[in-house]
Amino acid sequence: MKTMVALGEILIELNSLSPGPLRHVTYFEKHIAGSEANYCVAFTLLGNRCVFVGRVGDDEFGRNAIEWLRGKGVDVGRVKLDPNPTGIFFIQRNYPVPDKSISIYYRKGSAGSRLSPGDLDDDLLREADVVHSTGITLAISETAREAVFEAFERAKVTSFDTNIRLKLWSPEEARETIMNLLRREPLKFLITDTDDSKVLVGESNPDEAYRLLSPYAELVVMKQGPKGATVYYEGEKYFSPGYTVKVEDVVGAGDALGGTFLSLVLSGFPPKKALDYAIASSTLNVTMRGDQEPLPTLQELDEFLREMNKVPGVR
Amino acid sequence: MKTMVALGEILIELNSLSPGPLRHVTYFEKHIAGSEANYCVAFTLLGNRCVFVGRVGDDEFGRNAIEWLRGKGVDVGRVKLDPNPTGIFFIQRNYPVPDKSISIYYRKGSAGSRLSPGDLDDDLLREADVVHSTGITLAISETAREAVFEAFERAKVTSFDTNIRLKLWSPEEARETIMNLLRREPLKFLITDTDDSKVLVGESNPDEAYRLLSPYAELVVMKQGPKGATVYYEGEKYFSPGYTVKVEDVVGAGDALGGTFLSLVLSGFPPKKALDYAIASSTLNVTMRGDQEPLPTLQELDEFLREMNKVPGVR
Amino acid sequence: MKTMVALGEILIELNSLSPGPLRHVTYFEKHIAGSEANYCVAFTLLGNRCVFVGRVGDDEFGRNAIEWLRGKGVDVGRVKLDPNPTGIFFIQRNYPVPDKSISIYYRKGSAGSRLSPGDLDDDLLREADVVHSTGITLAISETAREAVFEAFERAKVTSFDTNIRLKLWSPEEARETIMNLLRREPLKFLITDTDDSKVLVGESNPDEAYRLLSPYAELVVMKQGPKGATVYYEGEKYFSPGYTVKVEDVVGAGDALGGTFLSLVLSGFPPKKALDYAIASSTLNVTMRGDQEPLPTLQELDEFLREMNKVPGVR
Amino acid sequence: MKTMVALGEILIELNSLSPGPLRHVTYFEKHIAGSEANYCVAFTLLGNRCVFVGRVGDDEFGRNAIEWLRGKGVDVGRVKLDPNPTGIFFIQRNYPVPDKSISIYYRKGSAGSRLSPGDLDDDLLREADVVHSTGITLAISETAREAVFEAFERAKVTSFDTNIRLKLWSPEEARETIMNLLRREPLKFLITDTDDSKVLVGESNPDEAYRLLSPYAELVVMKQGPKGATVYYEGEKYFSPGYTVKVEDVVGAGDALGGTFLSLVLSGFPPKKALDYAIASSTLNVTMRGDQEPLPTLQELDEFLREMNKVPGVR
Amino acid sequence: MKTMVALGEILIELNSLSPGPLRHVTYFEKHIAGSEANYCVAFTLLGNRCVFVGRVGDDEFGRNAIEWLRGKGVDVGRVKLDPNPTGIFFIQRNYPVPDKSISIYYRKGSAGSRLSPGDLDDDLLREADVVHSTGITLAISETAREAVFEAFERAKVTSFDTNIRLKLWSPEEARETIMNLLRREPLKFLITDTDDSKVLVGESNPDEAYRLLSPYAELVVMKQGPKGATVYYEGEKYFSPGYTVKVEDVVGAGDALGGTFLSLVLSGFPPKKALDYAIASSTLNVTMRGDQEPLPTLQELDEFLREMNKVPGVR
Amino acid sequence: MKTMVALGEILIELNSLSPGPLRHVTYFEKHIAGSEANYCVAFTLLGNRCVFVGRVGDDEFGRNAIEWLRGKGVDVGRVKLDPNPTGIFFIQRNYPVPDKSISIYYRKGSAGSRLSPGDLDDDLLREADVVHSTGITLAISETAREAVFEAFERAKVTSFDTNIRLKLWSPEEARETIMNLLRREPLKFLITDTDDSKVLVGESNPDEAYRLLSPYAELVVMKQGPKGATVYYEGEKYFSPGYTVKVEDVVGAGDALGGTFLSLVLSGFPPKKALDYAIASSTLNVTMRGDQEPLPTLQELDEFLREMNKVPGVR
Repeated sequence: MKTMVALGEILIELNSLSPGPLRHVTYFEKHIAGSEANYCVAFTLLGNRCVFVGRVGDDEFGRNAIEWLRGKGVDVGRVKLDPNPTGIFFIQRNYPVPDKSISIYYRKGSAGSRLSPGDLDDDLLREADVVHSTGITLAISETAREAVFEAFERAKVTSFDTNIRLKLWSPEEARETIMNLLRREPLKFLITDTDDSKVLVGESNPDEAYRLLSPYAELVVMKQGPKGATVYYEGEKYFSPGYTVKVEDVVGAGDALGGTFLSLVLSGFPPKKALDYAIASSTLNVTMRGDQEPLPTLQELDEFLREMNKVPGVR
Repeated sequence: MKTMVALGEILIELNSLSPGPLRHVTYFEKHIAGSEANYCVAFTLLGNRCVFVGRVGDDEFGRNAIEWLRGKGVDVGRVKLDPNPTGIFFIQRNYPVPDKSISIYYRKGSAGSRLSPGDLDDDLLREADVVHSTGITLAISETAREAVFEAFERAKVTSFDTNIRLKLWSPEEARETIMNLLRREPLKFLITDTDDSKVLVGESNPDEAYRLLSPYAELVVMKQGPKGATVYYEGEKYFSPGYTVKVEDVVGAGDALGGTFLSLVLSGFPPKKALDYAIASSTLNVTMRGDQEPLPTLQELDEFLREMNKVPGVR
Repeated sequence: MKTMVALGEILIELNSLSPGPLRHVTYFEKHIAGSEANYCVAFTLLGNRCVFVGRVGDDEFGRNAIEWLRGKGVDVGRVKLDPNPTGIFFIQRNYPVPDKSISIYYRKGSAGSRLSPGDLDDDLLREADVVHSTGITLAISETAREAVFEAFERAKVTSFDTNIRLKLWSPEEARETIMNLLRREPLKFLITDTDDSKVLVGESNPDEAYRLLSPYAELVVMKQGPKGATVYYEGEKYFSPGYTVKVEDVVGAGDALGGTFLSLVLSGFPPKKALDYAIASSTLNVTMRGDQEPLPTLQELDEFLREMNKVPGVR
Repeated sequence: MKTMVALGEILIELNSLSPGPLRHVTYFEKHIAGSEANYCVAFTLLGNRCVFVGRVGDDEFGRNAIEWLRGKGVDVGRVKLDPNPTGIFFIQRNYPVPDKSISIYYRKGSAGSRLSPGDLDDDLLREADVVHSTGITLAISETAREAVFEAFERAKVTSFDTNIRLKLWSPEEARETIMNLLRREPLKFLITDTDDSKVLVGESNPDEAYRLLSPYAELVVMKQGPKGATVYYEGEKYFSPGYTVKVEDVVGAGDALGGTFLSLVLSGFPPKKALDYAIASSTLNVTMRGDQEPLPTLQELDEFLREMNKVPGVR
Repeated sequence: MKTMVALGEILIELNSLSPGPLRHVTYFEKHIAGSEANYCVAFTLLGNRCVFVGRVGDDEFGRNAIEWLRGKGVDVGRVKLDPNPTGIFFIQRNYPVPDKSISIYYRKGSAGSRLSPGDLDDDLLREADVVHSTGITLAISETAREAVFEAFERAKVTSFDTNIRLKLWSPEEARETIMNLLRREPLKFLITDTDDSKVLVGESNPDEAYRLLSPYAELVVMKQGPKGATVYYEGEKYFSPGYTVKVEDVVGAGDALGGTFLSLVLSGFPPKKALDYAIASSTLNVTMRGDQEPLPTLQELDEFLREMNKVPGVR
Repeated sequence: MKTMVALGEILIELNSLSPGPLRHVTYFEKHIAGSEANYCVAFTLLGNRCVFVGRVGDDEFGRNAIEWLRGKGVDVGRVKLDPNPTGIFFIQRNYPVPDKSISIYYRKGSAGSRLSPGDLDDDLLREADVVHSTGITLAISETAREAVFEAFERAKVTSFDTNIRLKLWSPEEARETIMNLLRREPLKFLITDTDDSKVLVGESNPDEAYRLLSPYAELVVMKQGPKGATVYYEGEKYFSPGYTVKVEDVVGAGDALGGTFLSLVLSGFPPKKALDYAIASSTLNVTMRGDQEPLPTLQELDEFLREMNKVPGVR
């Protein structure tokens, strides 16, 4: 069993019960989310262990987040309660673009944004099989950013998902900060997509983007949306195509892909096989609301792949 | 800012919460609808002004309709309260034909059907940039029909959506009455579709239908269902194709198309560009229940077109 | 009007209100189901008469089942109340395989499983135009199995749907028992699919499977999932292709196909035409939850076929 | 087993899912209702037989009503399908008066209102143990009124619930018509309440009202709202007090009381005992939405009385 | 028709669909709220005019708030769009104290808190029949506080509801600020309750509290929770008792009381009569979720009083 | 922190979303329940530790139960996965007796019923501060009964809730088995109610029942339903009265009372104070669905008591 340490923010997701503009949505459905928390649950369900480092509010939503993640098997022993409120966000689905979602954040000054270097534990970082964070944590506050930089400095093995959210910072800030991190701490795993690579290195062509990002990581996963994803490592390149399904909500699908990939690769699966599973996990993720509820076990992923790759059969 | 005067009936829509035969639907969701009201809201949200001329019941549903439309920015100062009840209709979705809806009306003798020439205001009609009505208003009562004929006679600029509903009258009545209107009052804008043109001039081929209808209008929009729509004007012809999306309820999509088109053309957009936007609005409309909730702003339409015409991207 | 006698179990279906793993489903929607009950309702709605022979619990769910089927026109005069509880099952939808469902049964020792030869009525069986049962009834208990064998022995005309459920028995048991039945009582109608034929005769190719099964039935319907179905009879073979629709829940679709086919063939429709209708009924069935709510009347099937086979029209 | 013939209208009830003014209610829940249909189901569930005489639309709602009542065991063999639509009504709950409901009808010209003397069957009326109707059926149309007068003339034993609905007629019309009926056809059973007696004979005091109404009926049930009800017969008087419960919707409670009372008295229960049961049935009726869903069996009524009359116990 | 100018914050309310701790609530229902907005709608529905002065976010929730209030007839012409987000709050109902609610705010730095003196319009303030605000607006920001002080200085007639929210400021801050306002600008109308008077003048006995507050206002309404409320004016004192009803959510009930009272008193009703109506409005308010949906018209209030003061009647 | 070991069955609760007979309930809401699991969560939330000993199915419902309890802080390390299915039950609420619920079990042969002596761990039992079980576990199977007897034999301190469920065994069996347990293993804590004492010792008067049961336990809690409860210990007797609240579902209220009482007494609270808290917890429990969601923290209980014992205040 491998251990991942994830630094980030757990959020309360308020997903629209019906599609369309938020102004006409009456009911919202609560879920637990946050990119690094999503990674953690995906990672844990596939047989490994994740320690979450971060803060939630000392309030109902904070307690809710801790109970949920603990239930899922995540190690929440290092999640701190903070006097600031737990961050939340709303999701507007399928409007004004079908099969796309929009996030509206109430996370400024949130408990999660108060993550700071003081929250780190040296032993934990040193012993972890991987230390993971994302561009979101870099963007939410100065102290959170410092925490990621410091953690990556101390870690043996690092993983980073670029996850650029333009509601949290400008493309310039995103580029400067992330490239600064990459230059200082070459990664073991870089997970990104063709929108983010456009921001970071001016390229949205996967191969070209990889070429420019390759100095900074041993292995790069390049997500390409519904089309699929490509993994580059040790001179190899493997593209795993996406599946066509009914889209309910795409939020969290990238984290499902990344968390599944990391967990399986750390468990010893070859990156190609791990990416096929990761695409399967990400596909299931878009077919329902909630970022973590659709996350599968290995047995469920196997069943997905077996059935989806059969010739069209009988029901 | 341009002003449209719309004559028609505001209805309470009771949409099935689940697809299937009405006999097995337990929950109904209330919306405000009515073809001309839909036009009004689409028109208003795109930056123009609409004055609705019609009647609602002096009851909860009537007050509901007025509050909703006023909220949306529609000028409801001329909507009269009538002792008869506000008309309602139920929608059966996706049964027995997938992606089609069936309307069941309780509008006989409704407040809305009591619209009459006495409800018209000469100044308003004369000063309007366009006076609009539909085949539905011609069908609901004698007095409503007279009101439309009289209004069109007095108006400077007219727009008409054929909107033939065979639950309200026979094909023969529809043909005779509508062709009578067209002959007497050549229109600036005729909005129709290939089912209606079959009834009116015996043709469901768009070009052939246009040829037969062209004497009666300066500009004709020919809706062709999910395939798209064609606009014919000043010797030009432009086809804007539809988008493939998950269909929740098609009711109101034609009005979204027509109202969006009219508002943008009156604002000075070229008809071709206006039709592209109209197709976008109509596409969004079929992806959710409610006729008016999915109606977009110009900024939302721009986002739709930008994203939907991108090469398949990353999520 | 023809009479079918159906032997089997009526179940309470608890369908997930949202897709995804059962562990995260909070709301369940109750429906009446059970393969032979589904057949009965399909059969009845198309103008014939069905007598259901079986047992339900002397409890709320049992009474619920009886009231529902009686409402639908099924003759429930021979349904016995049993001290054991009414069987139930849960449906997990679209997980871990999109557009597939998983059934979780609580039917061991259920009232329905206590069907026994003593519940049969000789006159009824002799006078019936067809006596029908399924592989499920063979699997639920010894006594139910005996009841089917005895009923088929006494019946003039028999129909059997293989319906192999691997949660109820092993492939070996299924093969042995079903083939034993087929050998002893050659059928008029055999309804099966390419998964079941693989279990029974080791063949999932429709034509090959038919060749091996043909000694046991005058007419064979071979279901091929979303692809469609083939009917073989009197040296003829006819394939009716499926329709592409949004899948909500596939449970019950096979029964809709079989029940529709049987009812129409007994009413005198040629098997080819009956199969086209049966495919239509089965298509509607997958677009909504509930096995029996989507079952159509002949008029609804006609409307389906008329509209679905039109060239893409206007909305 | 006794037979009741009930003349009246089956309605589709659209009950507000949440309390408050209809203008702010978004979801409506469909139920089957109509005073005489409510009587029928109450009557049937207690072990007798009811034949409903009336009309529903040849539409989804009409079929829905027939299937529901048939499921409940009501004899619907004489319910006619009519080209006019099935009547519907909406319920506004707890507003503007807590624990009261308001009905909004769409039943003018409904199928049900087209009941006419031609729908009557002499044999049926003559052989019935009781023929029942209400003031509502007198109010909905001329022909329906005539049907009731004629039926009562031909019947051996009659029962009438005054059920005055001031949205359907004026107090004067109600008084004149009902008193006319009472004078011409002295009843076996008169069911009324203190509001209706105020309209009919100017008295809302139960005893005084009874004195004035006593010439017209052998037995009078005087409903007194939440306070309870009194039965007067053969010189006896018995008051059965109501129970204090949470009120969800009072619509249908009076019919529950009347139908329960009639069924039990005809089964041979003494009127006092029957009234205690009737109050119990009516009490259950106000605690949930739907007029017919709360109707109990005798066993359930016994359990209610046993538990509610216990000294406060343990849970 | 009288005009009120209200200064304050419009909030998005996310009410728990089910009672209990927020950590276990899955669905939230969106409403428009905010104390001064509630006052506005209550005031408007009773026949007067309210101009709202404040800010909402230039976002979906802000647009939603404006459309809703405009629909209700509130003059929103002076509501500014602000780059900061629209404030929101969650309601936890009936936990841990039955019949009480808890509000959890996300309004720090909200658009509404950016109300400032620059948003005021001298003419509007001078011509208003009353200028109204609450302790909440004093608490949300420095600039909002200044806006209230300045507006009250310029106004002819002022009204103030103390509305102390201890989640927004300390008792000391609340006392100092509010007493400062009262001392500088003696009010025409002071609306308060016995919890707030305890904070302000150390007294929760209504009469004693009034004695200490009387120098600061011509008329004082002292709310006493479910027990009722007392109005003191021109040497008179009148207590109007509350009604016992099922409590769904008490949030907004005080505003319903205040807004109803103000509107009717300004319309010329005697304060005693106005208070009776205000208690009625406040009673209806606690029986359903949403602060503004339960607000009644005068006709509805009359019906409430007529029915609730009747001797227990018949249903 | 004290440790409780609880032996029993975790069940999936399917609670009716609406009140009334199960035959008319369409939606069911899933919760985690089971008397001993309820005790565990109540115990844990008040600051102690509970180890659950029992079995769940190796299925979705079993995993669901484990994740939920782990989230709540219960030690589930000794919960075994069993090939048999997880037990479930349905709740019918408020019918046919208002404010009462009826449970319908599908737990025969469930995973939980397969608890057996082999599942016990000597060290755990010896070191526990209390070992707890209930009459339900005695009733579900032979092996479960043996497990309880053996565990009680080995434990230092025992607690037992009689919890007689007459759907699981006869009064005679219940009496014989439970009295047998009490005689062999005198308890530290006996929690019972006046219905159960009637079965066990023929007495429903609390004091009389206590007299007869006192030989078997050092401390007895006698629940008296909505009236309250009495604790008897060391010659003392203390009655804590219940509160009048709106009842949603009483299932689980007794466990809330018992679990709260045990946890606080073990933490050192005097039994009288602990009983006041226990009554508060039990009161909250009946106001919402779900057995475990309403369970409070100590801070929430304090708030309840503070507010509920205030003189009626202001809202």
